[in-house]
Amino acid sequence: MAREDPIKNLIDALKRLPGVGEKTAQRFAYFIIGMTGRDARLVAQAIVEVKERIKVCSICYNLTETDPCPICTDTKRDRSIICVLEEPRDLIALEKSGSFKGVYHVLGGLVSPITNVGVDELRIEELRHRVSAEGVREVIIATNPTKEGELTSHVIRERLTDMNVKITRIAQGLPAGGDIEYFDSQTLTAALTNRREL
Amino acid sequence: MAREDPIKNLIDALKRLPGVGEKTAQRFAYFIIGMTGRDARLVAQAIVEVKERIKVCSICYNLTETDPCPICTDTKRDRSIICVLEEPRDLIALEKSGSFKGVYHVLGGLVSPITNVGVDELRIEELRHRVSAEGVREVIIATNPTKEGELTSHVIRERLTDMNVKITRIAQGLPAGGDIEYFDSQTLTAALTNRREL
Repeated sequence: MAREDPIKNLIDALKRLPGVGEKTAQRFAYFIIGMTGRDARLVAQAIVEVKERIKVCSICYNLTETDPCPICTDTKRDRSIICVLEEPRDLIALEKSGSFKGVYHVLGGLVSPITNVGVDELRIEELRHRVSAEGVREVIIATNPTKEGELTSHVIRERLTDMNVKITRIAQGLPAGGDIEYFDSQTLTAALTNRREL
Repeated sequence: MAREDPIKNLIDALKRLPGVGEKTAQRFAYFIIGMTGRDARLVAQAIVEVKERIKVCSICYNLTETDPCPICTDTKRDRSIICVLEEPRDLIALEKSGSFKGVYHVLGGLVSPITNVGVDELRIEELRHRVSAEGVREVIIATNPTKEGELTSHVIRERLTDMNVKITRIAQGLPAGGDIEYFDSQTLTAALTNRREL
């Protein structure tokens, strides 16, 4: 296997990346061949390092170099509010906004009848456990406002109803800088329904 | 640098691939994080191996593990016909077709006023040298039928006019399986002009 054609090997390896087909993998491969040896080694090293150093936080399931992660161990954060997210990328986006000072819980996906992801594949039991063990006051469900995100939100709410905790959902409405003219009815309906007094 | 955030490091490394922006690099990075350690190492290894094992043929400038490349050293191939190409990917496509039994010459690009690639950056002097030294009968110019490909073809023809060699250009016309209804005027004009008697 290792003695195969190294270009073909590389193309096959790159084809495994999401959304990358034969043609794109070829383009990437020839680009890598055109790199200096040093630059190519840096890319390879970055791949190896990320696997060696990144693990999953045993509390919130975020990706981290230390377990528990820096957010879970940060004493300045409010551990009584948990923001529930689909995946680590959503967490990064929210952290960038700087508007949330609680802690997180990464579900690891959304319930999906299409891709056949069931409730039990998400970390909902782990969330229940945290809510009961850590004296949580509020769970903010911050899954995407898509069909699957709403379905997941619904399921989480159901699973937590027997617990003494406030459950909230992030707001839907127009995004900042949005142009009313171009938004779908669902967004506009949400923006109207969720209107607030000035 | 190596002690930076390994996820950010990887995203930065992946962003260097052609056509890959921040979002795609993120998607790739999280996909790699989700791979098994073994699979990720295979990708990294494929990158390192391709750089270590692939070099450029000193005769035709194709990518190869041995110098000269297997095509240049193949005694069954007709060394008196050289097919001139933009890049190694074109060579692979032609080899797959199985319809060419001569040898190749990879230019390493096309003349382009837009990206400012000049004639002297292509391997045209090297081609002249081969034509005069190796008793070449025919040079087939197989650059793409694009503006830059045609310009390059024109330049090569000019540079070889003083030499005793037949210069030909690959044919333009409809591709196999093509639907006349959907082709541009230039292709249809070429298909009509290059018509042949049945």
